[in-house]
Amino acid sequence: MAKQTSRLDLVLPPRPAGVPYGRWLYSSLRELILAGRLPPGTWLPSSRDLARQYGLARGTVVEALEALRWEGYLEAKVGAGTRVSPTLPDGLLAAPRARTAAVTPPVPGRPGRSLSRFAGRLQPLGNLAPGPVRAFRTDQPALDLFPLKLWTQLASRRLKQASTDLWLSCHPLGFPPLRQAIADYLVSSRGVRCEAAQVAIVSGTQEALDLAARLVLDPGSRVALECPGYEGAQRVFAAAGAELAEVPVDAEGMVVDPARLAGARLVYVTPAHQYPLGMAMSLPRRLALLDWAGAHSALVFEDDYDSEFRYTGRPLPALQGLDSQAQVLFAGTFSKVLLPSLRLGYLVLPSDLVDRFATLQSITRRHAPVLEQAVLADFMAGSHFGRHVRRMREVYAERLGVLQAAAREELAGGLELTGIEAGLQTIGWLAPGLSAERVAAAATRRQVEVRAVALPAAATPDPAGRQGLHLGFAAVRPGELRRGVSALARVLAAERPP
Amino acid sequence: MAKQTSRLDLVLPPRPAGVPYGRWLYSSLRELILAGRLPPGTWLPSSRDLARQYGLARGTVVEALEALRWEGYLEAKVGAGTRVSPTLPDGLLAAPRARTAAVTPPVPGRPGRSLSRFAGRLQPLGNLAPGPVRAFRTDQPALDLFPLKLWTQLASRRLKQASTDLWLSCHPLGFPPLRQAIADYLVSSRGVRCEAAQVAIVSGTQEALDLAARLVLDPGSRVALECPGYEGAQRVFAAAGAELAEVPVDAEGMVVDPARLAGARLVYVTPAHQYPLGMAMSLPRRLALLDWAGAHSALVFEDDYDSEFRYTGRPLPALQGLDSQAQVLFAGTFSKVLLPSLRLGYLVLPSDLVDRFATLQSITRRHAPVLEQAVLADFMAGSHFGRHVRRMREVYAERLGVLQAAAREELAGGLELTGIEAGLQTIGWLAPGLSAERVAAAATRRQVEVRAVALPAAATPDPAGRQGLHLGFAAVRPGELRRGVSALARVLAAERPP
Repeated sequence: MAKQTSRLDLVLPPRPAGVPYGRWLYSSLRELILAGRLPPGTWLPSSRDLARQYGLARGTVVEALEALRWEGYLEAKVGAGTRVSPTLPDGLLAAPRARTAAVTPPVPGRPGRSLSRFAGRLQPLGNLAPGPVRAFRTDQPALDLFPLKLWTQLASRRLKQASTDLWLSCHPLGFPPLRQAIADYLVSSRGVRCEAAQVAIVSGTQEALDLAARLVLDPGSRVALECPGYEGAQRVFAAAGAELAEVPVDAEGMVVDPARLAGARLVYVTPAHQYPLGMAMSLPRRLALLDWAGAHSALVFEDDYDSEFRYTGRPLPALQGLDSQAQVLFAGTFSKVLLPSLRLGYLVLPSDLVDRFATLQSITRRHAPVLEQAVLADFMAGSHFGRHVRRMREVYAERLGVLQAAAREELAGGLELTGIEAGLQTIGWLAPGLSAERVAAAATRRQVEVRAVALPAAATPDPAGRQGLHLGFAAVRPGELRRGVSALARVLAAERPP
Repeated sequence: MAKQTSRLDLVLPPRPAGVPYGRWLYSSLRELILAGRLPPGTWLPSSRDLARQYGLARGTVVEALEALRWEGYLEAKVGAGTRVSPTLPDGLLAAPRARTAAVTPPVPGRPGRSLSRFAGRLQPLGNLAPGPVRAFRTDQPALDLFPLKLWTQLASRRLKQASTDLWLSCHPLGFPPLRQAIADYLVSSRGVRCEAAQVAIVSGTQEALDLAARLVLDPGSRVALECPGYEGAQRVFAAAGAELAEVPVDAEGMVVDPARLAGARLVYVTPAHQYPLGMAMSLPRRLALLDWAGAHSALVFEDDYDSEFRYTGRPLPALQGLDSQAQVLFAGTFSKVLLPSLRLGYLVLPSDLVDRFATLQSITRRHAPVLEQAVLADFMAGSHFGRHVRRMREVYAERLGVLQAAAREELAGGLELTGIEAGLQTIGWLAPGLSAERVAAAATRRQVEVRAVALPAAATPDPAGRQGLHLGFAAVRPGELRRGVSALARVLAAERPP
């Protein structure tokens, strides 16, 4: 039978002068058990190891362990070793959670401690909600349709064939075959102009934003971003201490207004599909933004989120592909195309920033985990990636259709859905006079997830602005979509002014 | 037969006014193929998809594709679709790497571009060397002894049992069962005082350093670090714009000199095993450092690297376990215990910093990849982790013995090895008059990797300081260790003054 000792080392307090060795070992172990620092079931090092490590006679150790065994603290298993008794006598441990209490004294607030100004600027960003997927969860793919079996096969093959080189480390910008596969995909399918050397593997759009901000922004630097826009970008720029210039959007995307953009070192845009409103940035606006950036030596951060899921119209080439002056940073993620938990995405850099970015990666994360990069490279090199995206696009188009049909039937007059061309979510605009926050709160009570969206007056002909609900459909099964629409209809009926 | 199209979308240039649709499609595709943007073998979207996306008649598309097929640009495969001919006629493509050249125009240096002051302070940090493992590679475990089969089994099981919750995301500080497993391990085996809520999963010590620096340091803040010391810490603090106070080390570790530490907001130490010299920090020094930090509201960053591999003496409890004022950040990594490419490590935080650190993680990386965290949690929950470390400890002790025996035999008088108690590497001190840089350069020519180490005069009785070589033994097989020693003996004989 294999030896079961998972316990590596045991750290014992120093022996007070005058206390015999055996007594000291006995009482130290007993204390550790009573304080919960050695939980029930924990395997101890062998008596041989304990004797060697603490310079004790083997017999002294055996005697102390025997005593603890007789008292019920320890249990010996033939061929396996000695462990803390899994069923300690009642009342032996002071309290069920005595362990936690004993280990960590409560820490008082520490007003004297100096943290950075950066730390003072941090504001929380909500994570993706865990738990069962309900209508109308946003920003999430259909997790249950991920090709898990195929992924497992590819991972097993990579693990079996792994050379030590694969395990050791990789280039700070990422695993070279993955960078090449992404460059090939972006050149032909997204109209990006790049080679593999410009592709940096990051953990997702959020990390790409953070790293770009560190490279470009100082406290007090001006950064322009869409309003309404993506909260995650706003959080990163605010933490960097940047001055935030909010630029309105209209039906053609960000309004390229030199007065609003003035002095910006970086402009954050979502041209493929504005977040959260969903429209594409028009070609004249794209050209105007690039002209402005070229004239002012500014950089543009293009967040290409959800561009893979386009249901109508032709594929829109990336803003980056129009850029002749190397001023666009182009970011995408596999969180929506594959899985959020993978934590893999990419940032395409202007060539003159590649070395500096590699240095930044090498002193911060060194590089992304290699195995998942290798599996993804295999997934992209075969036809799997294209097939998966096509399949998901069909499923999501169908779910969008279910949502639209149910909304026409049950929500007419109360909620007007925007016609979207791409993405995993849409927006429903509320009739004037209804409060999005109130509707969202009432919906939550009926197990429906919606997020309030407010369009400022500047972005709409209505001087009061416009209120709406952000509705995700991609992650939600058709039956749950229909249930959600019915529940929302009841909420709207109750909220509507008589 | 399954459809082979991995091509999702095709981005075509706009049609110039007056050019017929079919002509435009034909010449656009031909251009893309000639420029190498559609490499040989690339599958095209179906004619149906092309017609729909670009608003063309299906017949127009079919005609254009047919023409390209007759000219040899495309190839049709029954049941599979149309692809760029895998064997394009000779001389058709301008040059073998025409593709790269065509895609990316050379970017001139951009002196007008403003980057951050942080970007200006970045200095490169060497990555782990790839390639075959030679004597005397440092900072690397024995990759070929990693329990790959077991790891693959655990990964497959997790993938099979995966619920959508596991795929979705996790707490910004990490996968809860892994945080618990690490807390249990650190409490019993490293003498750390913590609960799982204080454990943050990071990608390794380098990221822990970067995140801690962001939370604590402003440009101009003072940070104290050991000299000689770990280059990766120096790089992070320098990039943060901190003022670096280098504190000498002696046989008891960092000299806790209030004059040197004055004004430091953060003190970086390697108490278990000083980097690179290898000695442990003595108990009086540990207590003095904690007293000093408590009196000055400073934080201590304890880098516990390689503490798992202790060959003699008793396990040394962590500095963090002596801290009663919650002023220690305790960092460790799985890069050496398991694999560098995993990119998993941990940072144990004082309780009052936990929420702020979680916010920082949520806006930067969101969280570490979930699958590898789950597999590691399983590895630690069973007895695998303990068994693997014990086994590696035995292998490394044996390799250390081989190195020491060979050095006694062949290097006596030229290189004096330090007696080490723990770690993956040791230092050989050169006889006075020999230059470490010269010896390292000559060794490289004989396929031996050694890194020069210089001990400043302040840290040694010798007023000229001391020069030595950093020698790794853990990753290197015994035969290669012996070859390395023989090669080094020849180098020393050639370099020694007559």
